[in-house]
Amino acid sequence: MKKVNIAIIGLGNIGSSLFAHLRKNRDLIRKQTNVDLNVKYVSAKNRFKKRKIKVSNKKWLKSYNLAPYINDIDIIVELIGGSEGAAKKLVFNSIKNKKHVVTANKALISKYGDKLAKLAEQNNVNLEFEASVAGGVPIIRSIKEGLITNKISKIYGILNGTSNFILSQMADKRMDFNNVLYEAKKLGYAESNPIADINGDDAKSKIQILSSLAFNSLINRSKINVEGIKNIDQIDIQNAKLLGYKIKHLAIAELKKNKLLQMVHPCMVSKGSYISNINGVLNAVIIEGNPIGKFTIQGEGAGPGPTTSALVSDICSILRGDINPPFAIPNKNRKKIKSIDISNEIFSCYIRLDVFDKTGVLSSITNTLSKNKISVKRLIQNPFRSKRFASIIIISHKIKNSNLIKATNELSKKKFVINKPKFLRIIKT
Amino acid sequence: MKKVNIAIIGLGNIGSSLFAHLRKNRDLIRKQTNVDLNVKYVSAKNRFKKRKIKVSNKKWLKSYNLAPYINDIDIIVELIGGSEGAAKKLVFNSIKNKKHVVTANKALISKYGDKLAKLAEQNNVNLEFEASVAGGVPIIRSIKEGLITNKISKIYGILNGTSNFILSQMADKRMDFNNVLYEAKKLGYAESNPIADINGDDAKSKIQILSSLAFNSLINRSKINVEGIKNIDQIDIQNAKLLGYKIKHLAIAELKKNKLLQMVHPCMVSKGSYISNINGVLNAVIIEGNPIGKFTIQGEGAGPGPTTSALVSDICSILRGDINPPFAIPNKNRKKIKSIDISNEIFSCYIRLDVFDKTGVLSSITNTLSKNKISVKRLIQNPFRSKRFASIIIISHKIKNSNLIKATNELSKKKFVINKPKFLRIIKT
Repeated sequence: MKKVNIAIIGLGNIGSSLFAHLRKNRDLIRKQTNVDLNVKYVSAKNRFKKRKIKVSNKKWLKSYNLAPYINDIDIIVELIGGSEGAAKKLVFNSIKNKKHVVTANKALISKYGDKLAKLAEQNNVNLEFEASVAGGVPIIRSIKEGLITNKISKIYGILNGTSNFILSQMADKRMDFNNVLYEAKKLGYAESNPIADINGDDAKSKIQILSSLAFNSLINRSKINVEGIKNIDQIDIQNAKLLGYKIKHLAIAELKKNKLLQMVHPCMVSKGSYISNINGVLNAVIIEGNPIGKFTIQGEGAGPGPTTSALVSDICSILRGDINPPFAIPNKNRKKIKSIDISNEIFSCYIRLDVFDKTGVLSSITNTLSKNKISVKRLIQNPFRSKRFASIIIISHKIKNSNLIKATNELSKKKFVINKPKFLRIIKT
Repeated sequence: MKKVNIAIIGLGNIGSSLFAHLRKNRDLIRKQTNVDLNVKYVSAKNRFKKRKIKVSNKKWLKSYNLAPYINDIDIIVELIGGSEGAAKKLVFNSIKNKKHVVTANKALISKYGDKLAKLAEQNNVNLEFEASVAGGVPIIRSIKEGLITNKISKIYGILNGTSNFILSQMADKRMDFNNVLYEAKKLGYAESNPIADINGDDAKSKIQILSSLAFNSLINRSKINVEGIKNIDQIDIQNAKLLGYKIKHLAIAELKKNKLLQMVHPCMVSKGSYISNINGVLNAVIIEGNPIGKFTIQGEGAGPGPTTSALVSDICSILRGDINPPFAIPNKNRKKIKSIDISNEIFSCYIRLDVFDKTGVLSSITNTLSKNKISVKRLIQNPFRSKRFASIIIISHKIKNSNLIKATNELSKKKFVINKPKFLRIIKT
């Protein structure tokens, strides 16, 4: 039986889980792939840190830097993370030295995926990154293989489990953002530094990877509108509910006349819609394509278990000897695709203004809106705490994004406006 | 560039759609697989039938029977259907003659899958059947590759689009079964002879295939409880709604202490649950596994578009040269698995009795239930049309299936019972 050696670099929760899984399932992997997979080496920043797993001395690599140059390593699993530094160096060097690479690193792939794919092809090795998007959900394999030759027009979904957990908890428990974030950290659903999750950067990396696969294009990093969830107030959650919506953080990539619109933002979605029911740390991806129609896949978006499942699927694909281009098609066939700026896109929007309740306020607001070509579909004025303040909720007809931004900026400068106006686009899913 | 010849046998809606798709996307397939795929031959029962596609004379095979023996055919796509006769003969002969086979034929695979898999391995060819379950949804590929080494404990879902369409329409439009079935036929959502869809046989074949893949076992055909949807009345749909449920036709396969429970039946599921929101012709499959957790995939379960998508994914997998065992692992490693009879399984149940409203009726019913160890959680008696009749609805605590059957049989013999008692198991999803 063929024997393949693997090195796991990075032994956090995920690396440890993978190590334990591969050790426990060595027999099963033999049966399923006809290959004997041996975890030959591991490496991590701190060798003597307390971990759930026990690693024998002879498996420890002095430095992860050595891995690309060791002859008896066939596959390197990079679980360091981050788009630069150690992870970048390791992955580039590994591929250059003809090692197959498996990684969960969305930041690295979204930034250097094109270069790495080219390099992997040149060196005839695999670069696999199923675990970089949507945890255990085999979305990348589904696009690359299950939906091959489909003409995909749109791919979108909930790609950040932390944001979705926070929004779900805010809705269920009527807690404020900061309290939920605190709880999420305690439960392990948010990292100690959750900034990339909260500000949308994590979802941005993921949608870049997905849209590149879906549209057979090089990774497109330009003109992506990215908004996070930290400005969502409990009152917006409640307003959404009253209006028949839920607030969800979506990442969307859509082909429009052969140009690419990518956007990442919290938005309102209809309460009955599929995506509105994806709660907690779940991820979901929806694909609209021809001939398949509408296709949906969902599952746990993060955590050691699901991520291990995805890593192992990549590893076994390598064991089977399926050397395919990292982005499904040869790099030379991946097209550059022009991107669309969100400015001229039109959306129906929710706008909330907290104002001093004085004469003339409403007329000043409607004036500003009208000047910016924002036509009002619905307006609700609610007294707020005392009678001196009011919260004004506006649902607009379809308006240009640039007008939305301009109008809310103008409104935020009005003396009677208390806080920065809040807005959420209403997305039909 | 490598050239591969394919023959499509069967040119109904699906065969025609596949033919058109392969012709239109020949370039794309070249780019994606580096192989030039040529539809060399087609064959169908009636050559001169009116079709949406035009096939040149030289592509027509005189008889499908010849396909396995023609040298310049590499892949044969079987779209005849049925577990016996022409389809069976074609697939067996094709594999014996070292042709790769792609099929959408769930009846054939669920019946002869084990034999065919063995034969395919011996002849070192592919036998692919993604299109046999859940239309375009890449569920088979997801189990075989995306979830590899996962320990799956349960796989279930909505696998018959026709049944789901009928139940959804009955709920939405308050129409009766027969009227909806008539409409479904007109819309093309039910075949002119929909018996295998309506009576559960279609879903049975599909769950057999899925459970075999999920549990790495030979196909298990014994002790499967199969019930269709034709006994569901509009009043049951309404009652379900009132009680906080929806009626769905589910196929379920579950490992219990290393034994397999397979069942296919309409049942009540909680109104808020994921599966309760899968409507129309959609299919959905849910997998519970370790380490992945709960994983869900949904999409259009039938029709030329989705089925073509699945067939093409199989074809391209063959073009890439991925010769893998049909059921993911070598046939010798697939285990026999013992099956569990539903008799001793316990369920909470909904029972409906239409009765003459006479003195003593309720006590006779509760007596029979109690004698059969059925304890009542909830009982509602509604007058029915006139005051002489009543509909009695019972929600039981968890009861043994054998007791449910025995009690409803006994009750159906009572003089005061008007129609055969109806029951639905309540399934937690």
